[in-house]
Amino acid sequence: MNPDRFFSPDPTLRSLARELYEPVATLPIISPHGHVDPRLFADPNARFGTPAELFIIPDHYVTRMLYSQGIPLEKLGIRELGIAETPNPQSLIPNHREIWKLFCANFHLFRGTPSGVWLAHELSQVFGIEEKPSAANANWLYDLISEKLPSPEFSPRALFERFNIDILSTTDAATDMLEHHQMIRQSGWNGKIIPCFRPDGVVNLDAPGWRQNIDMLSVVSGVNVTDYSSFIRALEQRREFFKLMGASATDHAALTPATVELTPAEADAIFQRALKGQSEPDDPARFTAHMLMEMARMSVEDGLVMQLHPGSLRNHNDIIFQKFGLDKGSDIPLQTEYTRNLRPLLNKFGNNPNLSLLLFTLDETSYSRELATLAGHYPALKLGPPWWFHDSLNGMARYFDQVMETAGLYNTAGFNDDTRAFCSIPARHDVWRRASANWVAGLVARHIVDLEDAQEMMKELAVGLAKRAYKL
Amino acid sequence: MNPDRFFSPDPTLRSLARELYEPVATLPIISPHGHVDPRLFADPNARFGTPAELFIIPDHYVTRMLYSQGIPLEKLGIRELGIAETPNPQSLIPNHREIWKLFCANFHLFRGTPSGVWLAHELSQVFGIEEKPSAANANWLYDLISEKLPSPEFSPRALFERFNIDILSTTDAATDMLEHHQMIRQSGWNGKIIPCFRPDGVVNLDAPGWRQNIDMLSVVSGVNVTDYSSFIRALEQRREFFKLMGASATDHAALTPATVELTPAEADAIFQRALKGQSEPDDPARFTAHMLMEMARMSVEDGLVMQLHPGSLRNHNDIIFQKFGLDKGSDIPLQTEYTRNLRPLLNKFGNNPNLSLLLFTLDETSYSRELATLAGHYPALKLGPPWWFHDSLNGMARYFDQVMETAGLYNTAGFNDDTRAFCSIPARHDVWRRASANWVAGLVARHIVDLEDAQEMMKELAVGLAKRAYKL
Amino acid sequence: MNPDRFFSPDPTLRSLARELYEPVATLPIISPHGHVDPRLFADPNARFGTPAELFIIPDHYVTRMLYSQGIPLEKLGIRELGIAETPNPQSLIPNHREIWKLFCANFHLFRGTPSGVWLAHELSQVFGIEEKPSAANANWLYDLISEKLPSPEFSPRALFERFNIDILSTTDAATDMLEHHQMIRQSGWNGKIIPCFRPDGVVNLDAPGWRQNIDMLSVVSGVNVTDYSSFIRALEQRREFFKLMGASATDHAALTPATVELTPAEADAIFQRALKGQSEPDDPARFTAHMLMEMARMSVEDGLVMQLHPGSLRNHNDIIFQKFGLDKGSDIPLQTEYTRNLRPLLNKFGNNPNLSLLLFTLDETSYSRELATLAGHYPALKLGPPWWFHDSLNGMARYFDQVMETAGLYNTAGFNDDTRAFCSIPARHDVWRRASANWVAGLVARHIVDLEDAQEMMKELAVGLAKRAYKL
Repeated sequence: MNPDRFFSPDPTLRSLARELYEPVATLPIISPHGHVDPRLFADPNARFGTPAELFIIPDHYVTRMLYSQGIPLEKLGIRELGIAETPNPQSLIPNHREIWKLFCANFHLFRGTPSGVWLAHELSQVFGIEEKPSAANANWLYDLISEKLPSPEFSPRALFERFNIDILSTTDAATDMLEHHQMIRQSGWNGKIIPCFRPDGVVNLDAPGWRQNIDMLSVVSGVNVTDYSSFIRALEQRREFFKLMGASATDHAALTPATVELTPAEADAIFQRALKGQSEPDDPARFTAHMLMEMARMSVEDGLVMQLHPGSLRNHNDIIFQKFGLDKGSDIPLQTEYTRNLRPLLNKFGNNPNLSLLLFTLDETSYSRELATLAGHYPALKLGPPWWFHDSLNGMARYFDQVMETAGLYNTAGFNDDTRAFCSIPARHDVWRRASANWVAGLVARHIVDLEDAQEMMKELAVGLAKRAYKL
Repeated sequence: MNPDRFFSPDPTLRSLARELYEPVATLPIISPHGHVDPRLFADPNARFGTPAELFIIPDHYVTRMLYSQGIPLEKLGIRELGIAETPNPQSLIPNHREIWKLFCANFHLFRGTPSGVWLAHELSQVFGIEEKPSAANANWLYDLISEKLPSPEFSPRALFERFNIDILSTTDAATDMLEHHQMIRQSGWNGKIIPCFRPDGVVNLDAPGWRQNIDMLSVVSGVNVTDYSSFIRALEQRREFFKLMGASATDHAALTPATVELTPAEADAIFQRALKGQSEPDDPARFTAHMLMEMARMSVEDGLVMQLHPGSLRNHNDIIFQKFGLDKGSDIPLQTEYTRNLRPLLNKFGNNPNLSLLLFTLDETSYSRELATLAGHYPALKLGPPWWFHDSLNGMARYFDQVMETAGLYNTAGFNDDTRAFCSIPARHDVWRRASANWVAGLVARHIVDLEDAQEMMKELAVGLAKRAYKL
Repeated sequence: MNPDRFFSPDPTLRSLARELYEPVATLPIISPHGHVDPRLFADPNARFGTPAELFIIPDHYVTRMLYSQGIPLEKLGIRELGIAETPNPQSLIPNHREIWKLFCANFHLFRGTPSGVWLAHELSQVFGIEEKPSAANANWLYDLISEKLPSPEFSPRALFERFNIDILSTTDAATDMLEHHQMIRQSGWNGKIIPCFRPDGVVNLDAPGWRQNIDMLSVVSGVNVTDYSSFIRALEQRREFFKLMGASATDHAALTPATVELTPAEADAIFQRALKGQSEPDDPARFTAHMLMEMARMSVEDGLVMQLHPGSLRNHNDIIFQKFGLDKGSDIPLQTEYTRNLRPLLNKFGNNPNLSLLLFTLDETSYSRELATLAGHYPALKLGPPWWFHDSLNGMARYFDQVMETAGLYNTAGFNDDTRAFCSIPARHDVWRRASANWVAGLVARHIVDLEDAQEMMKELAVGLAKRAYKL
C-alpha cells in the first residue's frame, strides 16, 4: 500500500494532495448510509465466518465480475432459493476454500476496478497481507485469514473501533422491529449504530411480498392498515419509532424520481385496489410518485432527512433472479430525468427549510445538467456522493468535475459508503478522502482557492458536510 | 491574482500555456452575445449604484447560490413583484450595506465556482482589491468600492474602454425601439454597441404578455398584425430595422430545438387562435418549431446570423416566479435532442451558404454525440461556446475535449460571455483564453499540432472565430 | 513524428507510458472488424490510384470536414449518382491534382482531429513525408506520392505485409458471393483476410433495395425465399458459407438496440407483407428487433461472434443522400438506450456461454451507465472499442475512464479500426496502443496496478482481448 496511492502523478498536485490529505486521513469515519447487518454488533462474541464469507459470497460487486467471466454463482457459494431449506445444504455448495481459490485464481479480473482497490486495502490494513492474491498463494492466504478471524481483535465490534467509526447507519425495512439495534443499545457497548427508515417494501405496490409487508406493518405499528389513511398513520408511527431508536434519515428507492400529488381519494382508491390484489397497470408508479411527496411532507414535519436513490432497474436478469433472488449483481441503471420529475415535490417543499432532501443518481449525465443546477437553487436539496458503480476513483473525479462548479461544495452531502461489506468501509472512505485531496489540490494549483480555504474544504468533505446534511 | 491562474499544473503544459496565452491576453474583446443593458452607455454621466447593485442584486448566479443555502431573496435586495409600485419601496428592502455584508459573510459558498473566480477577478482588476471578502472585511470593502464608483474612471463608458472591448452586442426584444442604441450612436461616443434581434416574446405563443407584445409589434413595425402573413411582414420589418441599427444576429430561445414546417394555412390558423386567446395545447410548441424554420428562411434572405439557445425549463420554482418574476435563478436545464429535432431545418437550409446557424446547449451529452457530428457536416452550422452553467473552467475543458476532435475548431464560434454583469466581461474572456491555452498546449505537448499551428489556433479562439461566425 | 506523440505530458506518466508501449508497439495487428475492400488483395498486381483516391475521395471523415466548411463534394471528386453512367464521366469531375490541392490548402481544418493524426501518420510511415500539407507544397506532395504508388512496394499486398497485419476482417453483405475472398485464398498468398456476415440489407425491411436483396438471397443460398421460414433457412445457409470462408463473426446495424421475440406467425405475417410491398409503419422496427434475437439464436448454434452497431441515423442530409448516395458523411448519432432494449435478448441468451455478443455505441453516455454495468454482469456480453467519431485520442481516454472500472478490462474486446481507409490501419492501432499506455500508466503511477500486471494488460489491449473476443 503506497502512501501516495490514488494521488495525481503530477509532482505539484501530488505534494499538495498529500499535504491536504494528511490532516483528514485519521479523522473519524461518518457512515450515514449503508447496508451493514446490525446483527454483527448485537452479540459481543460475533465473528466473521470464513474468508469466502467475508470477502466473496455476500459482495455482489465481486460475484458479478466473476460471473461475467463465466463462473457460475453456485461455484461462488451463492445458494439457490429453496436450497437453504434442504436438510444438509452444506453438501450442495462448494467448500469455502474452493471458493476462495477460484477467487484468487481470477484476481486479475479486478485490475483497475474499485473492488480491486478495496480488496487490496482490506487485505493490507485489516490482515496485514501485501501479497496479490493468485492461484499460487490462495491456500496460504486462506489459512492466514482463517487463523485471524476467530480472535477477539477481529470481532466486528473490535474492528468498528479499530476503523475509528464515529457513527454507522444501517438501512432497515419500515416493518423492522430493530431488535438488533435494541440489543446494541442495551449491551452497554458505546459504538454508535443507528437505523434508517426504508419503506420501499410497503410503499412500492409492486415490491415482492407487498401484501404480507402490509400485514406486518399493521402488527408492528399497532395500526390496523385497512385503507390509505391508516396506512399513512402506520408509517408515521414507524417513523416516530425509528427516530426514537436514533434514526436521522429515511431512504427511498424508485425506478424513476417521478413525483405527483394524488388527491386523498385517488390515493385511497389505488391503495384499496392493491389490498384486493386488483392493481391497475399504472397504479404502482403513480402511488410511488405520490408517496415520495407524502414522505417529503412527513420529513418536513418530523425532521428526518430524506434520501432518494432512483434509477436502478432491479433484477434485469430473470434467470438469476428466479434462481438466486435479489441483489445478485444484475441491477442495471436507467437514464433518469430529474428536472420535470421532481418539480411537483420541489415546488411544494423545495423552499421549506425543514426539508433536507438528498439526491443520488446512477446516471452521471444528470450531474452537470440537472442535479447541480437544482441543488444550486433549492434550499431543501443537497446531492449525495457518487453512488454504487460510480463510487470509484474515476467516478469521484467526474463528480467533482461536473457537480461542484455549479452546485457549490456546500450543496453536497459529503461521502457515504453505502456498503454491505463492513471491512471495506475504511477503504472506501480513504478513496474518497484521497480523491477529494486530488480535486482540492487542483483548485489550489490553479490558484482558484488558497491553502486556507482548501484545508477547510477538506474537513468538510471528510466529515463536516455529511454530519450536517444528515443532522448527526 | 496569480499570473499563472487556471493553467494546468503540469510544468510542460503550464509553460506552453503561458507562452500561448501571452500574445492573445491583450487582444481586444469581441462580445457578440450578451445581456448588458444598453442604457448604461446611453448617458455619458451614468454610474453604477452601490456595490450591492453592481455585484449582487442583478446577478442570478450569485443570488441563486446564496438562496440555495437558505438566505431569502428579499434579504439580497430582490424586490417582490408589485412592491416597486408602493410609495416608499426603499423602506421595505434591506440596506445595501447589509446585503453586501451578508454576501461577504457567505463568500465561502463560492469556493471553486465560476462566480467565485469572476468576482475575484473583478475585485482585483476593476477595484484593485486582492482581499478575500469575509464578514471581517465587509464594511471596509463596501466603503472602498462605494468611494470609487461615482468617479468618472468608473463610468460604464470609461470601463468599456478600459476593458478594451471592440464590440458588444446586447439582446433586445423584437418590439424594442432601440432608443438607447440610438442615443449611443448620436452621442458621438465611438464605443461599438450593437443590438441583437430576439423575437421570443412574439414568436412563442405562451410567452408572458404575448398578446400585448403583438400589439406593440404592430405599433413599432407600422404593420397591423392581424394574421400570420402580416405577422411575418412585421418581423421582416423589425429585422430590417435591427440591421440598420447595426445588428448582425438574431437569438432564439426554445424549450426544445424542434423544427417543423407548417403550411401557411396551418400557421395562420394557429396564429389566429392565439390572437383570440383560444390556443390549443400543442399550438405554442408547433408554432415555435415552425417559426424557427421561418427565422432560418429570413436569415438566408437578410444575412443575419441565427443563434439558437434551447433546453432551459424556465421558472422551475413556481413560488419564486410568482413572488419575484423571471430570471431569479430557477431556470433548470432539460435533456435535449438535436439530431431528429433539427433535421427539418437542416434539410431545408443546412446546405445553404447564406445561413449561419449557431447552436448552444445546456445538455453536455449532446456535445460529442450530436452537436459535433452535425457541425462537422452541415456548412450552415457552427457551435457556440459552453453556455451558462457550463461557462466555467471545467465546462470549457469538457467542451474542448468532447467537441473539437469531431467538429473541428473551425466549425465553432469562439467565445461569448452572455452576461448581464458588465464588469465580469473581462474575467469571463480571460477564463476562456486561459482554458483555450490549456487545451492547445495539450495538443502541442502531445505532438498533435506544432507551435506555429497552435499560435494561429489561439488567435482564432480569442478573436477570429467569433468575428467570422457573427459576421463582424 | 515524435516518438512520444500522444503520451501524457506528465514526466512520470510519459516515461511509464513509453516503457509500457514499447513492447507492444511492434506486435502484429489484429483487425477483426473493418470495411477494407477485399478486391484490393485479390489481384497481386493491384495498385492504389492517385493520391486523391488514396486519401480523400473514399474517406468520408475527410470529405465531411471539407464539406462542413463549404467545399462542395463535387469538387472533392465525389460523383453524383447516375453520373458514372455517362459516356465520359471523367470530364465532369475535377482533376485529381486539383482535388489534392484543395485538400492541402485546407489542411488546417484537421488540426486536433483524428483525421489529422491519421493522415500525418500515413504520410510519414507509408510515404516518408514529414511535411505538413499546405497550398505551398501541394504539387510537390502530389508528385512525390504519385511516383511511389505504382511501384510493387506500394501494392496493397506489400503494404499488408509491411503493416504487419496478422488478420484482417472485411464486412460483407449476406448476399455476397465472396469471390474476392475466394481469389485471395486460391492465389496462394498467405495474407489472412476473412469475411464478416452483415445481413442488414435483408434483415432490415426498410433497407434500400430490400426486395432485390431478397431475390439475390434466394439465388446465392439456393433456398427459394418465399416466407419467413425459408428466409431463416437461407440465412442459416449463408452463415454456414461465410464460416466455411473463414468468417468468425457477424455484424448488425440497427437504428436502436431494441430486441423483441415475435411468434413465428407474427414474424411470417410481417415478412409476407414486406414481400408484397405492403409493410405497415411498425413492421421494419419490429422485424429488426426480432431478427436480432434470431441472430443471437443462430450465433449460439453456429458459434459466430455477434457484433451490434446501433444508434446511427443514416443519411440525415436528404440532399446529399439523393445526390451522392450512402456513406457521404451525414450519418448522425442518436441517443441510445440499452438497458431496456437489450433485456429480451439478454434474458434469453445473455447467460449462454455459446454466445459472444460485442456491443458498440455512438452514445458515450451509455458507457458508465448501461454498457459497463451490463458487460460487468452478463457472461455473453463484451464491449467493443470506441466507435467511429469516438475512435480518437480523447474518445479512447473517455472510454477507459468511464468503462473500465465497472466493466473490467476482461469484459472488453480490444481494438478494431473499422476503417475503409486501408493505409490508416497502422495509424489507428498505434493511437489505440498509445492511448492504452496512457491509461495503464495512470494506474501504475497511482499505485492501482503494479508493473507486472500493467505489462500483461498492455498485451491484452494490443492483441489478446481482440483475439479471444472474436475467436481468432
